[in-house]
Amino acid sequence: MSEQIGDKRKLKDESEFPSVSIGDEGKVIQVLPKRPVIVPTQKPNLHYTPLKTGICYDVRMRYHAKIFTSYFEYIDPHPEDPRRIYRIYKILAENGLINDPSLTGVSDIGDLMLKIPVREATKEEILDVHTEEHMQFLESTEKMTREELLSKTEKGDSVYLNNDSYISARLSCGGAIEACKAVVEGRVKNALAIVRPPGHHAEPQAAGGFCLFSNVSVAAKSILKTYPESVRKILIVDWDIHHGNGTQKAFYEDDNVLYISLHRFELGKFYPGFPEGNYDKVGDGKGKGFNCNITWPVKGVGDVEYIWAFEQIVIPMAREFRPDLVIVSSGFDAAHGDTIGQCHVTPNCYGYMTHMLKSLARGNLCVVLEGGYNLDSISNSALAVAKILIGEPPDEIPESDRDPKPGVLEMINKVIRVQSKYWKCFRRKFGNFGGEYENAIESQIPKMFPLQDAIRNAQLSHYYDDFGMISLSLPNLNLPKNSIICSSNFFKAKSLCVLLHDTPEVWGNRDIITGIIDPSTSIIFDSSLKFINWAIERETAVIDINIPRSAFEADNYSSNLLSQDVMISLWDNHFKYIESLEKLCFIGIGEATSGIVHLLGKRDTRTVTKAAINFVGSSSLKPIVPSLDESLGDWYFKNSLVFTDHFHGCWSENDKKPRKKYGRVLRCDTDGIHNIIEERFEEATDFILDAFDEWSDTEDE
Amino acid sequence: MSEQIGDKRKLKDESEFPSVSIGDEGKVIQVLPKRPVIVPTQKPNLHYTPLKTGICYDVRMRYHAKIFTSYFEYIDPHPEDPRRIYRIYKILAENGLINDPSLTGVSDIGDLMLKIPVREATKEEILDVHTEEHMQFLESTEKMTREELLSKTEKGDSVYLNNDSYISARLSCGGAIEACKAVVEGRVKNALAIVRPPGHHAEPQAAGGFCLFSNVSVAAKSILKTYPESVRKILIVDWDIHHGNGTQKAFYEDDNVLYISLHRFELGKFYPGFPEGNYDKVGDGKGKGFNCNITWPVKGVGDVEYIWAFEQIVIPMAREFRPDLVIVSSGFDAAHGDTIGQCHVTPNCYGYMTHMLKSLARGNLCVVLEGGYNLDSISNSALAVAKILIGEPPDEIPESDRDPKPGVLEMINKVIRVQSKYWKCFRRKFGNFGGEYENAIESQIPKMFPLQDAIRNAQLSHYYDDFGMISLSLPNLNLPKNSIICSSNFFKAKSLCVLLHDTPEVWGNRDIITGIIDPSTSIIFDSSLKFINWAIERETAVIDINIPRSAFEADNYSSNLLSQDVMISLWDNHFKYIESLEKLCFIGIGEATSGIVHLLGKRDTRTVTKAAINFVGSSSLKPIVPSLDESLGDWYFKNSLVFTDHFHGCWSENDKKPRKKYGRVLRCDTDGIHNIIEERFEEATDFILDAFDEWSDTEDE
Repeated sequence: MSEQIGDKRKLKDESEFPSVSIGDEGKVIQVLPKRPVIVPTQKPNLHYTPLKTGICYDVRMRYHAKIFTSYFEYIDPHPEDPRRIYRIYKILAENGLINDPSLTGVSDIGDLMLKIPVREATKEEILDVHTEEHMQFLESTEKMTREELLSKTEKGDSVYLNNDSYISARLSCGGAIEACKAVVEGRVKNALAIVRPPGHHAEPQAAGGFCLFSNVSVAAKSILKTYPESVRKILIVDWDIHHGNGTQKAFYEDDNVLYISLHRFELGKFYPGFPEGNYDKVGDGKGKGFNCNITWPVKGVGDVEYIWAFEQIVIPMAREFRPDLVIVSSGFDAAHGDTIGQCHVTPNCYGYMTHMLKSLARGNLCVVLEGGYNLDSISNSALAVAKILIGEPPDEIPESDRDPKPGVLEMINKVIRVQSKYWKCFRRKFGNFGGEYENAIESQIPKMFPLQDAIRNAQLSHYYDDFGMISLSLPNLNLPKNSIICSSNFFKAKSLCVLLHDTPEVWGNRDIITGIIDPSTSIIFDSSLKFINWAIERETAVIDINIPRSAFEADNYSSNLLSQDVMISLWDNHFKYIESLEKLCFIGIGEATSGIVHLLGKRDTRTVTKAAINFVGSSSLKPIVPSLDESLGDWYFKNSLVFTDHFHGCWSENDKKPRKKYGRVLRCDTDGIHNIIEERFEEATDFILDAFDEWSDTEDE
Repeated sequence: MSEQIGDKRKLKDESEFPSVSIGDEGKVIQVLPKRPVIVPTQKPNLHYTPLKTGICYDVRMRYHAKIFTSYFEYIDPHPEDPRRIYRIYKILAENGLINDPSLTGVSDIGDLMLKIPVREATKEEILDVHTEEHMQFLESTEKMTREELLSKTEKGDSVYLNNDSYISARLSCGGAIEACKAVVEGRVKNALAIVRPPGHHAEPQAAGGFCLFSNVSVAAKSILKTYPESVRKILIVDWDIHHGNGTQKAFYEDDNVLYISLHRFELGKFYPGFPEGNYDKVGDGKGKGFNCNITWPVKGVGDVEYIWAFEQIVIPMAREFRPDLVIVSSGFDAAHGDTIGQCHVTPNCYGYMTHMLKSLARGNLCVVLEGGYNLDSISNSALAVAKILIGEPPDEIPESDRDPKPGVLEMINKVIRVQSKYWKCFRRKFGNFGGEYENAIESQIPKMFPLQDAIRNAQLSHYYDDFGMISLSLPNLNLPKNSIICSSNFFKAKSLCVLLHDTPEVWGNRDIITGIIDPSTSIIFDSSLKFINWAIERETAVIDINIPRSAFEADNYSSNLLSQDVMISLWDNHFKYIESLEKLCFIGIGEATSGIVHLLGKRDTRTVTKAAINFVGSSSLKPIVPSLDESLGDWYFKNSLVFTDHFHGCWSENDKKPRKKYGRVLRCDTDGIHNIIEERFEEATDFILDAFDEWSDTEDE
């Protein structure tokens, strides 16, 4: 980009001229310029011939198949079925992308695609990733008896073997290598390797998950070795629904290969289920930051989630990495219709993701088949990918404007936060602090203090000014100052409203560059105030309890415990000694509701407690555990209202209502504590008035 | 997507079979399945023929040219030069994309592109956008005399005219229509209209900015009218460096056309300079939310900024809009080398943006030339776009990993915030509140209170506990409670440190879905504390002043004024009456530094003031205005240190140091108030000690 700005020299290139018009008085005439000859400096009779898309396919890879031990296996075959590659090849032919009416894998396949001959990967190539023992074991399967094969199949980790497994696996691996080579050498524009058995679960020392050799790893290592100058960095994107543990392992300490996998994880419950598949595994040694796991927390994700992950993580990271070659570990088991993956990625979305990846590495892209078990889904998906590879635009994404599934945005955010230590592109999202922020909080530098303390102090001063409320302390509990604020006359109250809540929400702006929150445009949203106002108006005493959360503690374990201790302590030391008390109601907000449900199960408060209203929002439902009297469960269901967010997890899977032990759970139309309180305030307070038997009184007033 | 999950029926399609191996005891044999005949259900001898890319070009559009009035105009031609379209056509031929050795615009141009014949737009078509008067005026230019033409040229808004202008403009307009038609009718895959004069500045009633008819608007209206069923929504992306005021106006109240423009705005100083080009103009009536201006705050933007804007705004918005056709108003004057646009977009980036747009509307994309005046830049850029259109992958983006220019991220963020009222995709960034948030703050609902008040109260309680500091009030000023906190003995201090700062920063997490800030993981970063500790240790009295900002006020005008009033009032009513006072220093942080500089210019404080340290961070430099004594300027320069962020705007354009009136301005290595204070704390305090003549004393102690 050394072009000089404003250089006018080229404008006067004599072979070019402006078509000018000039006139004398009264008449405008067209005047030919001095040198009218149109002779372009470079004779433009060149032909631009776009490269074809390479394709790898060899019928011999269909020989690896499960040995039948029953007729049932014939009618309900093993999912990693030899027809997988045949069906993909067939759909490409049926749609005219390859010209092979016999479907036998001929050499000349027409104008759009170029056949890349498949060969067996050499032992040397394979041994760059796998151990000698693993190699020898697979070699030995060529000569094994049926019994030996069946016994090895049984002992392995989801792998079957026959006498052709070894040759098929070497062809599959060799196909991946040759496809990548053809791309790197510029013989094809990009490539699709229709190979099996798949590879990404095969670890250096062992087969696993239908995989014998780690095809993509072997190919990547081979390319880095063979073309050390032109290919220094390889990006592997693994969109198989399973984590590619084998590929991850092969490059975990390598900074020349960036491995990004999108897969179901579900706290390690989904195959392969190793902790290595979690999002916090970012590589090691000089490979730190060159491993990225995007872990779906639930099944059923689809186009929206994949596109969001690509836009937010894969593409920015990849562009910063600047790969020389992109290899896709292309399982199609996240596809709609795959009963193993149970997700809903459409063919169009596979195409769209391919389109996005084409923008990297000057288009050097090699798509290698991994899993995917619904023959219709994988062939339609592969067709969509192939169309993009030959240069067609992606088709429309259905439902692209629905919201991502609950939990997915948070997960993406967690991945970004973890990776922001290593990738500049993410710091724009989280400010310049990157990982320093957590350290700062944990080390408790004296010049910092927690926001939640400041908020609670501010609340006290408001409640004191407006309602004369005062601070109450519970000496035996480790509660921050001013956690409990109550009406000064609460000890002689007739009716009492107990408010138990998390630290109030703050709404505000966050600077996109520095990550700093601007206090001047931020507000504290104090949900209690609305209830306190309501109670005070009705001459009901109020006790307002703030349960601070512990920073960075998973599941808020200790703040849940704290809210339980506080409620028990308040009951045992205060409430039950208020002789005047006739009517008690609880209002819980957020995680803190745990304390209310705990108290109602542990103590029999039914003589005075008339109602319990819990706004749980998005936090988990708390079951009552009736430790004294079984009937408490029924009583709780009758006397409670539990409001959840619209998108609370308890509503997601089926139409079943949550069980009675959670109270009378109601689904709000909105999400977020503020919104659901706004939506249900009337309903909640009417319920209390009804329970207090004050409904008609109030109406009459 | 009605495919049934787990439907096994199709797996048993009889034309397919698994290649299975089955064995009897001791031997594994390959057994042919029952029906080995490979007869695909559909005979795969179809040929998939990708459509060509359409191209519009006609030499007659070169007849519109500026009438020469001097030889100077011949050697330095008008930038909207007839050669613009010729050079683009030529480079496509030179690179073999079109086959036309004579460069005359032949009909058969080879395998990759298809010639779309250009015709004159009809009056009816043009009148759907333009007024009858405008039409008649341009028609009349065909018969005007040279003098008339020159006079009209002079009177117009940057438009020249000759006797061929009318026909050229109608061809240009017709070319745009025909290119769009060919795409919509599926005759071509996509299209490039190499047309001139450009169109996007032409408003319904008037020509402007080299534009006569609004080509893209006329084309869009015509398509919507002609194909009401197949094209209901059109996206127009205008990446010309100027705002397309004409196009915006044509569709400002239309929800069928989403107009997104990326352009230099610079507070309206850049052409066309109408306030209509600002980012807050989002459309009107039912068109509200269907107009989006992405306004570069500075010149010199390039690939990184355009890609960021595309990824953050254009693509998400477009995907939610789901257009049936995408038209690009493709000026190439943001290209590197264009002296009018003064920006640095590379050809590869134009290609990349085209690649991204190809993913919309099933690839229905029509690129129509607008501005762009460096003949080399526009031809290279157009070539890169054309290569993407025919299906090639984009080339690499140079420097894609640099940071966006200062101000650009903020600007993008402002656009997103404004548009988040209308587009769901942005709410994921700003929480569910969308525009409700600002309303909530402005209406001051009683259940909310400002975060900055809570923070200041918390500071007071800390300073009181640790240093015995107390609150001081200035009765005549409208300062929030506790804004001024001082050492209790400050009125008999010998040395005094005056700290003046904005509300302290908060660091914290913001929930990606709800936009709520989690107080439990947020901290207040109190920069004052470090200085107070330092001063108290040296038995220097301290006065700490917090200047709250006004929410949502541009340029912090009133908080600047407030900080000035506070300092004058403190000086006039307090400091100058402290008889013991010998040494005074000021430490300013953020916008509040304004008050210090103001005081030092308005009052002669030199008998006691020894040093003024201002950490301005990213806020603007404040010039001293010496109202009493000219020498104050020099004095301020000698006795001050002013620390800026590394990326402060004052350093961006050239190597010149800021002028002396701003004090001794120093550039930090880092950014953000917290970081620059950490970086320069020693330097700042040493400077004060030196000025206080306490350096050696301190050393000796």
